[in-house]
Amino acid sequence: MTGNMLIQEVATRDGFQIEARYVQTADKIALIDALSATGFSRIEVSSFVSPKAVPALRDAAEVFAGIARRPGTVYVALVPNTKGAERALAAKVDEINLVASVSETHNRANMGMTPAASIEGFGRIMETVRGTGVSTNATVATAFGCPFEGDQPVDKVMHQVEAYLALDIKGVTLADTTGMANPAQVERLVTRALAIVPADRLTLHFHNTRGLGLANVLAAYSAGARRFDAALGGLGGCPFAPGATGNICTEDLVSMAHEMGIATGVDLDALIGLSRDLPRLVGHDVPGQVAKAGRPCDLHPVPQAA
Amino acid sequence: MTGNMLIQEVATRDGFQIEARYVQTADKIALIDALSATGFSRIEVSSFVSPKAVPALRDAAEVFAGIARRPGTVYVALVPNTKGAERALAAKVDEINLVASVSETHNRANMGMTPAASIEGFGRIMETVRGTGVSTNATVATAFGCPFEGDQPVDKVMHQVEAYLALDIKGVTLADTTGMANPAQVERLVTRALAIVPADRLTLHFHNTRGLGLANVLAAYSAGARRFDAALGGLGGCPFAPGATGNICTEDLVSMAHEMGIATGVDLDALIGLSRDLPRLVGHDVPGQVAKAGRPCDLHPVPQAA
Repeated sequence: MTGNMLIQEVATRDGFQIEARYVQTADKIALIDALSATGFSRIEVSSFVSPKAVPALRDAAEVFAGIARRPGTVYVALVPNTKGAERALAAKVDEINLVASVSETHNRANMGMTPAASIEGFGRIMETVRGTGVSTNATVATAFGCPFEGDQPVDKVMHQVEAYLALDIKGVTLADTTGMANPAQVERLVTRALAIVPADRLTLHFHNTRGLGLANVLAAYSAGARRFDAALGGLGGCPFAPGATGNICTEDLVSMAHEMGIATGVDLDALIGLSRDLPRLVGHDVPGQVAKAGRPCDLHPVPQAA
Repeated sequence: MTGNMLIQEVATRDGFQIEARYVQTADKIALIDALSATGFSRIEVSSFVSPKAVPALRDAAEVFAGIARRPGTVYVALVPNTKGAERALAAKVDEINLVASVSETHNRANMGMTPAASIEGFGRIMETVRGTGVSTNATVATAFGCPFEGDQPVDKVMHQVEAYLALDIKGVTLADTTGMANPAQVERLVTRALAIVPADRLTLHFHNTRGLGLANVLAAYSAGARRFDAALGGLGGCPFAPGATGNICTEDLVSMAHEMGIATGVDLDALIGLSRDLPRLVGHDVPGQVAKAGRPCDLHPVPQAA
């Protein structure tokens, strides 16, 4: 298995948004600049949501104003509504990421409306974005299962993907919002999605909530997917699983890819250094393994006989 | 992907052997009996090593004397030498598991001799075992890489497997002793091994040291492997990676298998209950995820609007 994998780093958005400790704006900017320098071609920087709803990301505009834009890196912001889109455009984001759950129960709990109403809102946001040169992506949340409803029919997921494409949204993300996916299901859903979305526009967003994050990446990659979200250190989490791990860990994913001969364009050594600094920023240990164990090729001295 | 997977539970051997806190003999016996009741067809109970070398397992004989033998479950002991084999036979084990590293440096550090000398010793142990009705398995340690030497040539690994088979050893385990394996390598090595070892006699032993444990299982299963070692709660570890996770976690593996439609014969609910009790026995949190997050099918109540 060879080829390329495109990894979008999401720690400063999907990770920081649930941290109890507020990460200072200057620290966020320094981390994003350092992540840019390791070679990421896509970084989800922050979210233009209500500061009341997600106080951890209330500095989204300041962060976008402060980061150095590395040529070749796309700086993305999550946006919940037209107001958020206007703020994102003012902040000169490269891409807007929209999100609606396929599960009606989850979307009502999360966004206060039906998925259909969310997608209708996407149409208005697309009008706001049109002609600005800003790119768009939309996420199908709970695509691999809803913590309230359980399994979601594949046809329903694909119907939502089609609705996104009909709005001229460029990229589509299938998100395993609460870590319910398994590799067999991933293979089925990715195969279906790739029939209507080109691989360079389809992103998979996995959480490691039940330990299957990288197994799901492997299944998706084998089925033809090439773009993945991941968070430095495995930051992120799930409100229904206190103590469980969060997003798949970027440096563990990069290590797996490189060991398999799959190029990512990311400097793994530099990434491990950034991950080892995360506990200072967030105030706790993080789930990533490679930052603790080192790369497989980092050899150890032979113990001397007593 | 459907079919069956045979999981050998190794927590009381590969897990407990590195725990700082001594797990009382009665607690070990109670846990093994409870594991038997969840349906495991194979449990690696303990190790007949020198009590000085591994004090945590000094009660191997008492544990074997105390456990209830469930019909249909094979109770295995790790054995380093002829003396250990004699103790294991006296304890009425069902199967003896031998181990030698393919890496000469690792085997010298671990066993104080060359791999060739270890395998010569296996011949003497096989003479001791012959006619007793006790089954045998031998492990190729560092089969996916050595922390001192790095990569190990596949031909060298296969040569060692052939040496085991020539001694009439029934089962063969390929062990990723320090968690260096990646899915592409696993696929290659399993494919080679299955050309000379039937699937019902080949076991894969993975560690999750770098987060790839279940991805490696998926690659091995896809390549035709059907038998896997795993430890309750993800107990176990690696002396070169303090803070890193240990063996692949049994309940996470069982959850993945069942979600994929692969039968294991193990009662996942009961297993999760046992994993949740582990911190009481070992005195610390354990890495397993499903015990924290619950099964994917465990749904949550819908939050009520404020």
